[in-house]
Amino acid sequence: MSTATSTVRPVLVAGQWRDANYQSTFQATDPNKNETLVAEFPVSSWDDCDAALNAAVDAAKQLRQLPAAKIADFLERYADRIDAAKDALVEAAFSETGLGKSPRLADVELPRTSNQLRAAAAACRSGNWALPTIDTAAGIRSCYESLGPVCVFGPNNFPFAFGSVSGGDFAAAIAAGNPVIGKANSSHPETTRLFAEQAAEALQETGLPAATVQLLYRTSHADGERLVSDPRVGATGYTGSRSAGLALKAAADRAGKPIYLELSSVNPVVITSGALAERGDEIVGEFVTSVLMGTGQFCTNPGLVLLQQGDAADKFIAAVKDKFASSPAGTLLSPAVATGLAGSVKALCQFGAELLTGGGEPESDRCAYANTLMKTSATNFLANPEGFQTEAFGNASLIVVADDLTQLCQSISELEGNLTGCIYSAADGSEEDACGAIAAELTVKVGRLLNDKMPTGVAVSAAMNHGGPYPATGHPGFTAVGVPGSLLRFAKLTSFDNVRSSRLPALLQDANLTDQTWRLVDGAWTQGSL
Amino acid sequence: MSTATSTVRPVLVAGQWRDANYQSTFQATDPNKNETLVAEFPVSSWDDCDAALNAAVDAAKQLRQLPAAKIADFLERYADRIDAAKDALVEAAFSETGLGKSPRLADVELPRTSNQLRAAAAACRSGNWALPTIDTAAGIRSCYESLGPVCVFGPNNFPFAFGSVSGGDFAAAIAAGNPVIGKANSSHPETTRLFAEQAAEALQETGLPAATVQLLYRTSHADGERLVSDPRVGATGYTGSRSAGLALKAAADRAGKPIYLELSSVNPVVITSGALAERGDEIVGEFVTSVLMGTGQFCTNPGLVLLQQGDAADKFIAAVKDKFASSPAGTLLSPAVATGLAGSVKALCQFGAELLTGGGEPESDRCAYANTLMKTSATNFLANPEGFQTEAFGNASLIVVADDLTQLCQSISELEGNLTGCIYSAADGSEEDACGAIAAELTVKVGRLLNDKMPTGVAVSAAMNHGGPYPATGHPGFTAVGVPGSLLRFAKLTSFDNVRSSRLPALLQDANLTDQTWRLVDGAWTQGSL
Repeated sequence: MSTATSTVRPVLVAGQWRDANYQSTFQATDPNKNETLVAEFPVSSWDDCDAALNAAVDAAKQLRQLPAAKIADFLERYADRIDAAKDALVEAAFSETGLGKSPRLADVELPRTSNQLRAAAAACRSGNWALPTIDTAAGIRSCYESLGPVCVFGPNNFPFAFGSVSGGDFAAAIAAGNPVIGKANSSHPETTRLFAEQAAEALQETGLPAATVQLLYRTSHADGERLVSDPRVGATGYTGSRSAGLALKAAADRAGKPIYLELSSVNPVVITSGALAERGDEIVGEFVTSVLMGTGQFCTNPGLVLLQQGDAADKFIAAVKDKFASSPAGTLLSPAVATGLAGSVKALCQFGAELLTGGGEPESDRCAYANTLMKTSATNFLANPEGFQTEAFGNASLIVVADDLTQLCQSISELEGNLTGCIYSAADGSEEDACGAIAAELTVKVGRLLNDKMPTGVAVSAAMNHGGPYPATGHPGFTAVGVPGSLLRFAKLTSFDNVRSSRLPALLQDANLTDQTWRLVDGAWTQGSL
Repeated sequence: MSTATSTVRPVLVAGQWRDANYQSTFQATDPNKNETLVAEFPVSSWDDCDAALNAAVDAAKQLRQLPAAKIADFLERYADRIDAAKDALVEAAFSETGLGKSPRLADVELPRTSNQLRAAAAACRSGNWALPTIDTAAGIRSCYESLGPVCVFGPNNFPFAFGSVSGGDFAAAIAAGNPVIGKANSSHPETTRLFAEQAAEALQETGLPAATVQLLYRTSHADGERLVSDPRVGATGYTGSRSAGLALKAAADRAGKPIYLELSSVNPVVITSGALAERGDEIVGEFVTSVLMGTGQFCTNPGLVLLQQGDAADKFIAAVKDKFASSPAGTLLSPAVATGLAGSVKALCQFGAELLTGGGEPESDRCAYANTLMKTSATNFLANPEGFQTEAFGNASLIVVADDLTQLCQSISELEGNLTGCIYSAADGSEEDACGAIAAELTVKVGRLLNDKMPTGVAVSAAMNHGGPYPATGHPGFTAVGVPGSLLRFAKLTSFDNVRSSRLPALLQDANLTDQTWRLVDGAWTQGSL
């Protein structure tokens, strides 16, 4: 047991900012200077988790009784507060992550974050995400409904847009009617705390249960596993490293608790010889921008390029190498990311990848690593496909050169599940047969197939799939971005059979109460009333 | 190693009825007479699984290239063949399961089975299940697509409608474009073989890959676990006992392979004092019919009744007891079911349930057990909720009597996840507050909430949820009956981002090629073209 001191940040439990129960603390690092930041954060004991779970169960019950519009009000109010608190949020995130203040944090990620919350509010208000379905002849109606308290473990690379109390999982869980217990990413706890402050104010302003949003900073691994498998939990959303994610998955699976994971992905990019011949310089530019943007720390960063041997490929590789070598290396998110990147590059080289530029050790006076380009043959790749798919998270990429189309397709068939896969090909349509063969192998491996476009951007769209087959995620049917997929992760399907009309959920009553909800009535989608 | 002999039934692998690789065989029992049936079936070695998986991978690739209408043709042709083969199927199933020939097998389950296949064909043909979504501004389109080979483990209680190569999981997996490897239920292998014969003929007649449907009868537990976690598998559907299901789930989870389970469920029925006062006799009749129909061997059999103490409850219990005692006991599916039922009743009585009628040991000259009614107090129930939720699969039910509404609701809050939950209440609306409290606790525990209706019937409806929270199933968001939920289990979500229009799947092209597909275009559902 320990007592909190004034220098240790409080947790947000049951609507109160209170001293944590903890036995140790941690501090984040400013990656811009490789310096430990002053603020101390508690590693919560199970008592904190237990208290948060109890409060969340009560909040879940209350939320079920509230109209969806009230929840939407909160999301919108919170979005406005985030916009208003921009300067402080950007400052904190810059100190904790090294991501650029502008445009990245202030002009891209922050508006994206508040707009995601507004999109979630719109989904919540309309009820469209719940796929309300009415069979008048059978007297049965169904929709998706809230599931119960959702734990969100946010990643290091998007402190706002995937933050545990501000990001996509959070927005989806709340919009589906669930309270959230956020576990801050250890690399940006202060940023997360500032978001939670805004959320708590917005909850109060809009009259939602105070425990709708709660925040812990860190727990032991054992308590994390206990948390995601606790009977009081509805589901968990996790974005982060594969090893930590799989440990949580194992615990949640054993308890029969849904857990949605976004793990590693090398995001293969296939570039045909025709595309390189036609517009090689342009593709070099797109590729280098995509890999080096955000210092390569995107979930959808293109870490693996597949080419067919030839002059065009050689020219592409040489040009990328030059650009990598001549571009300044960006700042990485944390010492762990820099060390991890160096380790992955070393491993890939040990497997036989040729280092074309970069490599070596991380810088010492900030978190950074040389832009790194590696190359190997498809023959080597096929001899150790698992090894060569080691994710090098950051500003590094591996190019695999195949002898011919057959070997290229064979290499693709050995890929693990990925978030994205790209095919660049000749615009004149002369490569359709080859592209058909490539796409047949690639589509089944990825959540999103792109043509002639790098994968780094993830539009918030109803048609977006930010997901993919295992081990990119834990389930091939859900997306972490976009509606309805992202909300359906945190919902249960419920049928109402012969249920008296006054007892039906609002979405399933005869009258279309919102006048805008799309409902599947006797096989036809309609916004009308019965 | 062994060689097959002429008395051992062949497996269906890669389109060939061929001798199995096996080291042992098994025989089913005729539960009508408790006699071993003559036909011998192989317990396949891993070689058979491996061969089936390889053939299924090839079939999956071919199926992805075929128009959905071809797959629909097969499902319809197969449905017609099943109708035509009715007499032989009914005869085999009667011998292996003891279920009544008419109306049950011939007039209820068989037409339900062929109609399910036709409904799946319609879903496949229309493409509606795939929720095609188009965002014209972002240039992104998405839909659900086939996932790869699906393993189906069918249950003992519906040899047709949930059969591994004829039932709901089969129909859903095929309609979503996946080949199926069926594992027959060991209690009715001959029935399953007859279905596979019809399926194989229908595949040939409609020009689908021969390995679209394959059949094994049994494997070792270890090989079953290896099968569901094999890299070549897309997903698994399992209906059956909790213990076997959870072993498969653990294996599939470790490999990141989706597995959909339908496990045990006690299907709580809450009957208020007002309902009993108003129409007690009627409810007695409905309840007894529901419990004894099919000798209580429905997934949605009402195994747990919750009442509030009082004269009305006493009268209800006495009347049910009389009807149970005076009704003939039906035949159970197998010796294992009879033994299991006797064991569960014994366990419930050891926990403190009072035996009102029935109990004892199974009959010896057929598979049967006395209609059994038990009673306990909610106080007892709350002292051992897990024990008192022991499923007694068959013609038995447990009545829990609560002191008051508070204790009733408390008991409901201790329920595990169930497929269904029913509330019977006064028709005059005088109990709305009590029912609100009951529903608040019950709805979150069940996949389907019913009012004033027993749960046994499962309509094939788009609004049906034959699912529910763990441990009723493995995931709260999917249904085993109905569209789109049942198909979405066996599908992956795929986004097409900036993909050239000639390369898009049929469902996502500008023109609505079927003229009937509902697509979500820029936020509005439409059957039109772009």
